[in-house]
Amino acid sequence: MNYRMMGKFISRILLVEAVFMLPALLISLYRNERNSVYGFCSAIVITLAAAVILAVLCRRAKKGFYAREGLVCVGASWIVMSLLGCLPFYFSGEIPHFVDALFETVSGFTTTGASILSNVEGLSKGNLYWRSFTHWLGGMGVLVFVLALGRGGNQSDGYTMHLLRAESPGPKVGKLVPKMKDTATILYILYLFLTVLNVIFLLIGRMPVFDAICTAFGTAGTGGFGVRNDSIAGYSPYLQNVCTVFMLLFGVNFACYYMLFMKQIKNVFKDEELRFYLAVVAGSIVLITWNIRGMYDSLGETVRYAAFQVASIVTTTGFATTDFDLWPSFSKAILLGLMVIGACAGSTGGGFKCGRALLMLKSLRRNVRQILHPQKVQVVRMDHQMVQERVLDNINAYLAAYVLIVICSFIVISVDGFSTMTNFSAVLACFNNIGPGLEAVGPTCNFGGYSVLSKVILIIDMLAGRLEIFPILILLSKSTWTRR
Amino acid sequence: MNYRMMGKFISRILLVEAVFMLPALLISLYRNERNSVYGFCSAIVITLAAAVILAVLCRRAKKGFYAREGLVCVGASWIVMSLLGCLPFYFSGEIPHFVDALFETVSGFTTTGASILSNVEGLSKGNLYWRSFTHWLGGMGVLVFVLALGRGGNQSDGYTMHLLRAESPGPKVGKLVPKMKDTATILYILYLFLTVLNVIFLLIGRMPVFDAICTAFGTAGTGGFGVRNDSIAGYSPYLQNVCTVFMLLFGVNFACYYMLFMKQIKNVFKDEELRFYLAVVAGSIVLITWNIRGMYDSLGETVRYAAFQVASIVTTTGFATTDFDLWPSFSKAILLGLMVIGACAGSTGGGFKCGRALLMLKSLRRNVRQILHPQKVQVVRMDHQMVQERVLDNINAYLAAYVLIVICSFIVISVDGFSTMTNFSAVLACFNNIGPGLEAVGPTCNFGGYSVLSKVILIIDMLAGRLEIFPILILLSKSTWTRR
Repeated sequence: MNYRMMGKFISRILLVEAVFMLPALLISLYRNERNSVYGFCSAIVITLAAAVILAVLCRRAKKGFYAREGLVCVGASWIVMSLLGCLPFYFSGEIPHFVDALFETVSGFTTTGASILSNVEGLSKGNLYWRSFTHWLGGMGVLVFVLALGRGGNQSDGYTMHLLRAESPGPKVGKLVPKMKDTATILYILYLFLTVLNVIFLLIGRMPVFDAICTAFGTAGTGGFGVRNDSIAGYSPYLQNVCTVFMLLFGVNFACYYMLFMKQIKNVFKDEELRFYLAVVAGSIVLITWNIRGMYDSLGETVRYAAFQVASIVTTTGFATTDFDLWPSFSKAILLGLMVIGACAGSTGGGFKCGRALLMLKSLRRNVRQILHPQKVQVVRMDHQMVQERVLDNINAYLAAYVLIVICSFIVISVDGFSTMTNFSAVLACFNNIGPGLEAVGPTCNFGGYSVLSKVILIIDMLAGRLEIFPILILLSKSTWTRR
Repeated sequence: MNYRMMGKFISRILLVEAVFMLPALLISLYRNERNSVYGFCSAIVITLAAAVILAVLCRRAKKGFYAREGLVCVGASWIVMSLLGCLPFYFSGEIPHFVDALFETVSGFTTTGASILSNVEGLSKGNLYWRSFTHWLGGMGVLVFVLALGRGGNQSDGYTMHLLRAESPGPKVGKLVPKMKDTATILYILYLFLTVLNVIFLLIGRMPVFDAICTAFGTAGTGGFGVRNDSIAGYSPYLQNVCTVFMLLFGVNFACYYMLFMKQIKNVFKDEELRFYLAVVAGSIVLITWNIRGMYDSLGETVRYAAFQVASIVTTTGFATTDFDLWPSFSKAILLGLMVIGACAGSTGGGFKCGRALLMLKSLRRNVRQILHPQKVQVVRMDHQMVQERVLDNINAYLAAYVLIVICSFIVISVDGFSTMTNFSAVLACFNNIGPGLEAVGPTCNFGGYSVLSKVILIIDMLAGRLEIFPILILLSKSTWTRR
């Protein structure tokens, strides 16, 4: 294992993190929030110190950086980043327990949006900003950001490829342009552009500037942290609709936007994953609207609530405008189904991903056909291209790991004695990076009641969900740490 | 598709079914139960008529019988067998609605044990006997029985193989002896022997003869239909312990018993699936005993209740001696986990199967190792033998189909408005052929409240679970019925 190269990279990530804490510090200074100024100053100093120490220790890095280094490096950087990123909450005393602060930060970076806070409005503005910003940074990925910054010269493309592949969601990572570094840059420019557009639309609806920026961070990262106790419910219908549309937009594969930008509009609408995603969204909205008819004043209002909640869950954002835990079972069942499917690959959303689900369906149909016509060679196609068997095998292995982690986590956190549905939906909500679950972790409740052990399990679930399991599995695997 | 060969085979199954209805008819005659005598007479006549018509229509069958014919044939025979097997309940008027009667019969043949009856003791003895006997016949498989009976001369071994493979549970079907027909015979002899042994042990504990036979049928098939409203709770601790032991015994791969019989005792204890199964059972009993401590009078009683419920759920039998829906969440979570894992392959139990779960874990570990050491060829071994990649791929495809069916069924039956946990556990309980779920379908409740649509979905789930999905998927697949 090339530890030095990894250390060097992590040191660069910490540097970026420290720099990104500066705006939050400035907000705290401007607002004269003494505790959080102290929190951010200490956090920045410690993060910088860690970055410098790592950089000095790992200054003579050898070459050689492979898939396993990529995975371990991604897993380790997310953990280190979270451990340091939670310091402002902890040092300011606004989240007094370290595990709670860590839970909140991991929930932020992984864009889960699950909170242990019962009173969000009690946080200082500086901490609120930092809490929402973790969503934005985690959404597209902090490694992707560092790669986008890095100078092309010293880095081999393979190195970048391994890191990008380990951090980006989806069954396969496509290059938009021949160079991976340029791909990373393009992704971040598109991301920034859409976020700014979101802020503008929110400002048009007269949302306060601070709320608009934080809400846009939560939407862009498909995270779900809001700045108000009632999430988005208190804003006007126009603002809720803006959120619905932008949540759905951030759930789309960013490669589609690049194609739009390159004026390949036809290809965008031929994208099978996008069509599947839109069909799932439209179908769910129709079914839920039918199911909850009569619960709200007008059809328009019903559609608005249905669309918002569907968009929020399928993109794994987790904003709420109504307590869907009070909806009938059929609607809740659809939402649980959406929790598992998740958004498109290559978006900022989490979950199993529409692309994987679609390929799984196709691969299943292929298996049935193969039994019927064993003499014919059957291939799986997506977007008119043959899908490699290796990709299909990986999806199946992914599903196996997914089911295994869900069952094990569910059993362990059940020790706390919450209801079965609470525990099951808590695991689904954390592992798929959604945020709210049902019953005691529903949209009007929070995760504060769980024990330290359960919180640690859910933290691991959130990280495993965001990084798509394998980086975390490899970090936890014995054979990674034994020399041969 | 070789329809005539399939018709000929189904006709033979119906003949066997009609013959097996005779004991129930005799019991009804002896007990002077007029309605059920009428029910069985009509059912026998119709079943025989159907058998004769099919035999005449399909008398000139061509050769050629492949995997797809095997699967379609198995799926079709189970459906036909259930449609005719439910007639005694329906004609006697004891289950007045046809869908309810069909649900009860499918639940019997698939050894699920889920019931729509709130008062089991209200059934006539003839119908009670037939209800329990469906478990016994379905447990080892009716096709296996017909194959065991068949004369070896006219049938090719491939034909038998395709049928046996389609009906027997587990990732792969091993031949115990070179000829498949002989394997089927050996399996049924072992099955009969263990059932008789079970009856004897129950009689020693002074269970009434009728109860003992019916309970043994329910245990042997890992079904779970009892003859009393309180399932097994009313019997003595000794009888409950006998049930615990025999449920666990019927959850073991029958190949192990054959090895015991052949005095290969060492090989039995080297069997990795058996060890995994025993470890899961022991671990679950210990954890649940710890979790429910203090709920019962003594440690002995607590262990007895824990062991009985664990054995009942992991073997997918579904007998109950206590209402585990009142247990704490942790115990319920373990039971839900056991529902999914299920018994050993090649046993009469259902679920995902221990062997599959174990192979899935090994294959996942292999994937992690492959990432760490991409240059090394990694193979998965089970019982010191290399597992073919095809077997691993099939397990993954099975998991994908499993997850897909669970999610879709769950969403559809949620329309009825029961609680989310009720619906989710109902699907798990039917699909894994267990019987009772949680909340409104818990051990003290029944499935009678569901709508016709939901019952049909659950019927399909039970069949898909028992036949391990693919026969039913192929029956429902368009391309099976279109000519090319």
